[in-house]
Order: sequence, then structure tokens, then C-alpha cells
Amino acid sequence: MPYVTIKMLEGRTEEQKKALAEKVTAAVVETTGAPAEKVVIFIDEMTKNNYAIAGKRLSDE
Amino acid sequence: MPYVTIKMLEGRTEEQKKALAEKVTAAVVETTGAPAEKVVIFIDEMTKNNYAIAGKRLSDE
Amino acid sequence: MPYVTIKMLEGRTEEQKKALAEKVTAAVVETTGAPAEKVVIFIDEMTKNNYAIAGKRLSDE
Amino acid sequence: MPYVTIKMLEGRTEEQKKALAEKVTAAVVETTGAPAEKVVIFIDEMTKNNYAIAGKRLSDE
Amino acid sequence: MPYVTIKMLEGRTEEQKKALAEKVTAAVVETTGAPAEKVVIFIDEMTKNNYAIAGKRLSDE
Amino acid sequence: MPYVTIKMLEGRTEEQKKALAEKVTAAVVETTGAPAEKVVIFIDEMTKNNYAIAGKRLSDE
Repeated sequence: MPYVTIKMLEGRTEEQKKALAEKVTAAVVETTGAPAEKVVIFIDEMTKNNYAIAGKRLSDE
Repeated sequence: MPYVTIKMLEGRTEEQKKALAEKVTAAVVETTGAPAEKVVIFIDEMTKNNYAIAGKRLSDE
Repeated sequence: MPYVTIKMLEGRTEEQKKALAEKVTAAVVETTGAPAEKVVIFIDEMTKNNYAIAGKRLSDE
Repeated sequence: MPYVTIKMLEGRTEEQKKALAEKVTAAVVETTGAPAEKVVIFIDEMTKNNYAIAGKRLSDE
Repeated sequence: MPYVTIKMLEGRTEEQKKALAEKVTAAVVETTGAPAEKVVIFIDEMTKNNYAIAGKRLSDE
Repeated sequence: MPYVTIKMLEGRTEEQKKALAEKVTAAVVETTGAPAEKVVIFIDEMTKNNYAIAGKRLSDE
């Protein structure tokens, strides 16, 4: 604990996702005092046809 | 805001998912008073082997 | 199925939430062809101190 | 109801997932008193490049 | 891992929730081979005015 | 986007949660290239009687 879920569009590189996990974990440790080994990150990637803002899917723009 | 996640079995057409995003957004706007551009829809599609009712996966029926 | 989770700030009235459940269900039935009795709605209400945009919680604005 | 989401790394066999759905449902029925036909199980499988502990993705180990 | 979220109406006793966590964990260990100390359970309790089936909240029945 | 959900035990101060939202947002912006105003943070606080590891709720320890 904490358990962090990051939901975003697919398309980031593996290097970006690796850095994302590292930096977000560091931010959680710094601000909550949780030990790093207890911080869990889940990345949840979406596709443009399953994500809509204002009723319009990104794949329909 | 609001953020709406719709979890359902895969198999709907793109036309159905497009209409789903439009109509659900309209329903949220009408009833909550939120502006349409703040309404976010996530569609989360499941497969039959990862979904069970009464202990039985749909893929095992 | 479908299972719909609507995440929003607390503060809507019971009448609004009742209408929200009705209208979103109708939109899901109309566009996916699912029977109404299979459509499940979860409303998940947040507080302003647990919700941030651009790094700023709504309670800090 | 209840609705149970089981998030785990991909790699389990279909037989394991079938047994998982059955046994977890039985445990829920036994302890909550809910009828089996109301218990829903969702299995949510992750990949090693989207899951990190202590800031390190399992795919980077 | 696995991470198990159990969403249900509030109203179960602490004894029921304690047994639920124990028995579901045992079922996960038995069927996935995960060690017990890696199994995490989250119980997520809903109220009747935030849960609807067929467009009708349980609090409106 | 991205949408970040941070699930943790209740008990952090408002100052800690404010800093958590700020620092996690900065980490997401730095590593994904998303503009800050698109980054959304949800904090989801749990109680010890709804959270178990190895089948034991933290409230039962």
C-alpha cells in the first residue's frame, strides 16, 4: 500500500512507462511515508475507440 | 466529471459503442447538470473466459 | 451486464441520482440491446479533498 | 451482488481460472449468505510491463 | 498479487467480513498457487441509494 | 488523461494528501508528456476492516 492505478491511452514507449512507474513511486514514498516496497503501480492502457469525452470517442474525431 | 466506466462483454460493433458513448453522455448531462465536455466515458470490454456468474465462466457454458 | 460505474463529486440530490440511474440505464439498453434487468449501475461519490486536477485538489482552490 | 474483481498477472491456465471462479464464488456464498446466482466474478489479467512494485516493473527485473 | 476487490451492499457483520477475507484468500491460494501473503483483499461497501438494477435504485424499491 | 487512482489506508493528513496530488501529478507530467491540466487524481481511502493481506484484515491484527 498504496496501490496506484494509472489509466491512459496506449502509445507510450516502454521507456516512458518504466520512468512513470519509478517517478510516481518516488512521489508516493516522499509524500505518504510508505516504504517503496509497499507501493504497487498498475498501468491500464486504453484504446481510442473505448474512450470518449463529451460523448465523442477519440477514434471518431 | 462525471467519469463513467461501462464494463461489458466484447462483441458490440463500433457503431454500437459510438452510440453508447453519445447516449450515455447525454443522459448524464441531462440528469446531473454537468457540461458535456466534462463527461468522460471509458468502455471496458471483457472476454467470456474472464467473466463468471454463479461460479461458471461464460466460456464454460 | 453491462456494469456501469459513475464516479462524481458528492452533492447531487437523491432525485438527481434516481434520474441518473434511470436515464443511463435506458441509454445502455437502447444502444447495446442488453435487457434492462441485466444493467447494473454503481454511483461512486467523491469528496473535494480526494479529487485533483492539474495537481490541485478541489478543496484547495 | 457481490461483484468480485480478481486482478492478477496473465499466465494462469484456463483450468486454473475456471477453478478460481468456482472456488471464490463458493467462498463468497458461504460467508455472505448471497445466493450463488447473484455472485459475479471478473478476472482482470495484467502484463508484466504494466505492473510495478517498489517502482520497478516486473518486465524490467 | 492477486488483488481481489469485493463490492457488495453494506450490512454484513464484522464476523462475516472477517470470514469472507479468510475464505476468499484460501480459494485464491488453492487455485492459483499464489502464496497467501501475496493475496490482497479489498472490501468495497455500497449503499442502497448508489446501486441500481434495471434503472431502479435499491433505495427506491 | 492520465487518470490516476491512489488507494490507501485512511489516516494521512490533508497536508500529506495535498502534497501527494501535487507530486504524483508532476511525476506523470514529466514522464508521459501529458499537460498538467489533463492529469486527474482520485484518492480512495480504505478502512482497516475492509483491507486484508494473507486473509487477515488489518483490523483483526
